[in-house]
Amino acid sequence: MVAINGERLLADLKHLRGLGTCGTGVVRRSLTPIDMEARRWLVSRMAEAGLEADIDGLGTVLGRSKKPGPALLFGSHSDTQPTGGWLDGTLGVIYGLEVVRALAEDPATHDSAVEVASWIDEEGTFFGCLGSIAFCGEFPEEALEGAKNADGQSLGAAIEAAGLAGRPRVSLDRARHFGYLEAHIEQGPYLEEEGNRIGVVTSIVGIRSFDITFEGEQNHAGTTPMKRRRDAARALIVLAENLNDAFEAQAGPRSVWTIGRIDVEPGAPSIVPGRASMIFQFRDAEEDRLKALEALARELVAEADRAGPVRVAITPRNDHTKPAVMDAQLQEHIAEAAEVHAAGAWVRMPSAAGHDAQVLARHIPSAMLFIPSIGGVSHDFAEDTAEEDIVLGCQVLATAAASILERFQT
Amino acid sequence: MVAINGERLLADLKHLRGLGTCGTGVVRRSLTPIDMEARRWLVSRMAEAGLEADIDGLGTVLGRSKKPGPALLFGSHSDTQPTGGWLDGTLGVIYGLEVVRALAEDPATHDSAVEVASWIDEEGTFFGCLGSIAFCGEFPEEALEGAKNADGQSLGAAIEAAGLAGRPRVSLDRARHFGYLEAHIEQGPYLEEEGNRIGVVTSIVGIRSFDITFEGEQNHAGTTPMKRRRDAARALIVLAENLNDAFEAQAGPRSVWTIGRIDVEPGAPSIVPGRASMIFQFRDAEEDRLKALEALARELVAEADRAGPVRVAITPRNDHTKPAVMDAQLQEHIAEAAEVHAAGAWVRMPSAAGHDAQVLARHIPSAMLFIPSIGGVSHDFAEDTAEEDIVLGCQVLATAAASILERFQT
Repeated sequence: MVAINGERLLADLKHLRGLGTCGTGVVRRSLTPIDMEARRWLVSRMAEAGLEADIDGLGTVLGRSKKPGPALLFGSHSDTQPTGGWLDGTLGVIYGLEVVRALAEDPATHDSAVEVASWIDEEGTFFGCLGSIAFCGEFPEEALEGAKNADGQSLGAAIEAAGLAGRPRVSLDRARHFGYLEAHIEQGPYLEEEGNRIGVVTSIVGIRSFDITFEGEQNHAGTTPMKRRRDAARALIVLAENLNDAFEAQAGPRSVWTIGRIDVEPGAPSIVPGRASMIFQFRDAEEDRLKALEALARELVAEADRAGPVRVAITPRNDHTKPAVMDAQLQEHIAEAAEVHAAGAWVRMPSAAGHDAQVLARHIPSAMLFIPSIGGVSHDFAEDTAEEDIVLGCQVLATAAASILERFQT
Repeated sequence: MVAINGERLLADLKHLRGLGTCGTGVVRRSLTPIDMEARRWLVSRMAEAGLEADIDGLGTVLGRSKKPGPALLFGSHSDTQPTGGWLDGTLGVIYGLEVVRALAEDPATHDSAVEVASWIDEEGTFFGCLGSIAFCGEFPEEALEGAKNADGQSLGAAIEAAGLAGRPRVSLDRARHFGYLEAHIEQGPYLEEEGNRIGVVTSIVGIRSFDITFEGEQNHAGTTPMKRRRDAARALIVLAENLNDAFEAQAGPRSVWTIGRIDVEPGAPSIVPGRASMIFQFRDAEEDRLKALEALARELVAEADRAGPVRVAITPRNDHTKPAVMDAQLQEHIAEAAEVHAAGAWVRMPSAAGHDAQVLARHIPSAMLFIPSIGGVSHDFAEDTAEEDIVLGCQVLATAAASILERFQT
C-alpha cells in the first residue's frame, strides 16, 4: 500500500512556514515578493518530484505529470490572509506534492499521472479563487484592471511587478483531468469537539454578502434635538440588531451570518453621523435556505427604509458563491481510506469556508478532505493542527488517491 | 445710539469665507497655512480699528484697546471643523470687531476700552478651546506634546510649523477684563422653529464622552458556529441599542446623546470581528442629570461585560466639560437690547454646543447671544444664516455692549 513520508511532508510545510513567518503565523499575500519566493521554491520541489512545473501568467504554480493518460489533480493555495496561519492553503499544496512523491515511489501507482497546483490568490487579495477560476476558463479579463488590493494596486500591475506579464496561463484539460482533490484544515471546531480526525466534505457552503448603506443627515451632536435627528449610525444599530434577531430565529442549524465591517461617517464624537454602511454576509450549504435568508434580509432593509427617517439600501457584493456538492464517488474513496487509517474517527461534513474545490467542482468531479484545527481557530496567527493529524490526513489522501487511480485510470 | 455698519460687517465675514472656501463651506483647521493667513488678516483689520493686535504663542489673535480702564472683551474663534460652515466661530470674531468699530464711532462710547479675541483651536483639531483655556491660565503644558491632530502631528510641532514658537502668550488680566461677550450661530433649530431671531443664552451644556471598547475573539466567518462566537461587533450593536433605549427613557427634555464613531477590527467581510469600539457622548445643561446618565451608561456597560462572552469596558475621554451658567446681569443687558431691536422675537435658551464662553465663565462674568441657523444645520458646508439676521444680531450685541459699558465703566 502507498505510504507517505511524514518527515518529508512536515519538513516541506515548515520550510514554507519560514517564508513570510510572523510570530506563529505567516503573512504571504498573493504576488508579493515573499509569495513569489514561495512559488519559485514550490516549482523546484515539484521538479525534484518528477513534475514539469512552472509559474503561469497569473501566478498559479502547476506541476504537470510527464506520464500519459487521465490525470488526477491535487491543489490548494500557498497565499495567505493578512494575518494568516501556517497551514491554511499550504497544507493542501504540500499534501499534493507528498502524495505525488509517494505514488511515484509505489510500484502499483508509479506510472499514474498525478498533478499538483498552487492556485493564485484564493484568499482574494485581488480576486478570490483567481487561480482556479482562470484555470477553469471563468476569469473575466476586465478584472485585471478592476480588481485591486487594499492599497489600490490593480491585479494587472501586481502581475507586472511580480515579473509574470506575458507568461502563458494554465488551463483545465477536460480530456486529461478527470478529478480534483483538495485537502485543507477544517478551520472550525467540529472535528476536534467530536473527537474526529478526518472530515469527508459533502458540500461547500454558498456565500451571499451585501453592502447595506444608510443615508441620514450629518449634524451637530449638541445642538440637534434627538427627535429631529436622521442619525445613520443609530439606524444601522437598529437594523443590525433586527437582522441578528431574525436570522437567529430563521437560520438553519449550520447557517452562519456576520457583520464583519461597519463604517460610520464622518466618525467624530461631536457629529451626528450622516452616512453609515455595513457588510452583512451569510453562508449555508443549501441554496434554498440562502434564497430564503436573502429574502428575509431584503425585507428587513425595506422595512427600515420605509420606517425612515434614514434611507437604507442593500446591494449584493460581487463575491457570491453557490453551494458546491462534492462528487459522491470521490467522497466514497476518501471515506474508505479514512476508515482504513482512522477507523470510527472520521465524519462527513459540509465545508463552511470557500475553497478552490468549489470552482473545480463546476467542471470536473471534485472532493475535499479536512483535518482538525486546534480550538477551531483560523484566519489568525494562532491557527494550528497536531503533527500526528497532519501526517494522518496526508496518508488518508494518498490511500484514497491510489484507489481512485486504480478505479479510474484502468 | 450706537449703530453698526451692516455692509462692513458682511464684507468682513465674506472675506474670511474666501479663506479656505470649499463649496458653500470653509475648511480652515487650526494652525494650517490658511488659518494663519486668516489670523494675519484679522490682526490687520483689528489694527485698522484702532486696536493693538497680534498673534500669540499658541495662535490666539488678541486685539487690545489702547484706552485705559476696565475693558469689555469680545471673542469667538476663526478656526473651523473638518467640514465647517462659514459662520461657526467666525461670526463672533467679526461681530466683536464690528462692535469695537461702532463703539469707537459713537461719542458716548468712544473712550471705552473694548477688546476682541479669536481664540485658537476652539474646534479641537489639537485641543478643544485651547485659546480660551490658555488665556485663563488652565492650559496643561504637557499637552504641547500630548495633543495631536488626526495626522499625528503634535500641537507643539504645529505651533513651530506655523512660525509661532517663542512668541509671548496672552492672558486674562483680572484687573482689567470685567466681562466677556460671545455671539454665535445657534447651530440648532429652536430659534427658527419658534420664529425667534435672537437667543439669550442662559447656560452652556456640560459634555461627557466615553470610549467603550469590546474585546472578543477574531475568527473565520464561515467556520465558526454562531454559538461559539465572541463577536465584538455584535456585542457593540446590542449595547448601543440598550444605551439608546435606556437614554430615551431616562434623559431630560433637552438631553442629547450620540454614538459618533464606531470602529470594528479587522473590518473584513469574512472575519468575525475580534475588537470593536465606539465613542458615546451625551450633553445636558444640568450637572445632576449628567451624573445620573453617566451612572446609567456605566451600569449598562458593566451588565454587558458580566453577561459576556465579549469583554466590555468604558473609559472617560479627556473632553468632559461642566455646564456653565451665564452671568445674570450680562444676560439682562442682552435681553433688553434684543427687546429694543427684535421686540417679542427673542428667547432665553441654553446652548447645546460648547463654546469658549464656558471657559471664560469660570473666571469673569460672561454671556452669549445666538442668531438663527437655517434649518438648524451646523458643522456642515450647508450651514447658513439670513443676512438680515446676521446684521440684526450684531446690532443687538452693540446695543447690549453700550449699556454694559455705561453700567460698568462709569
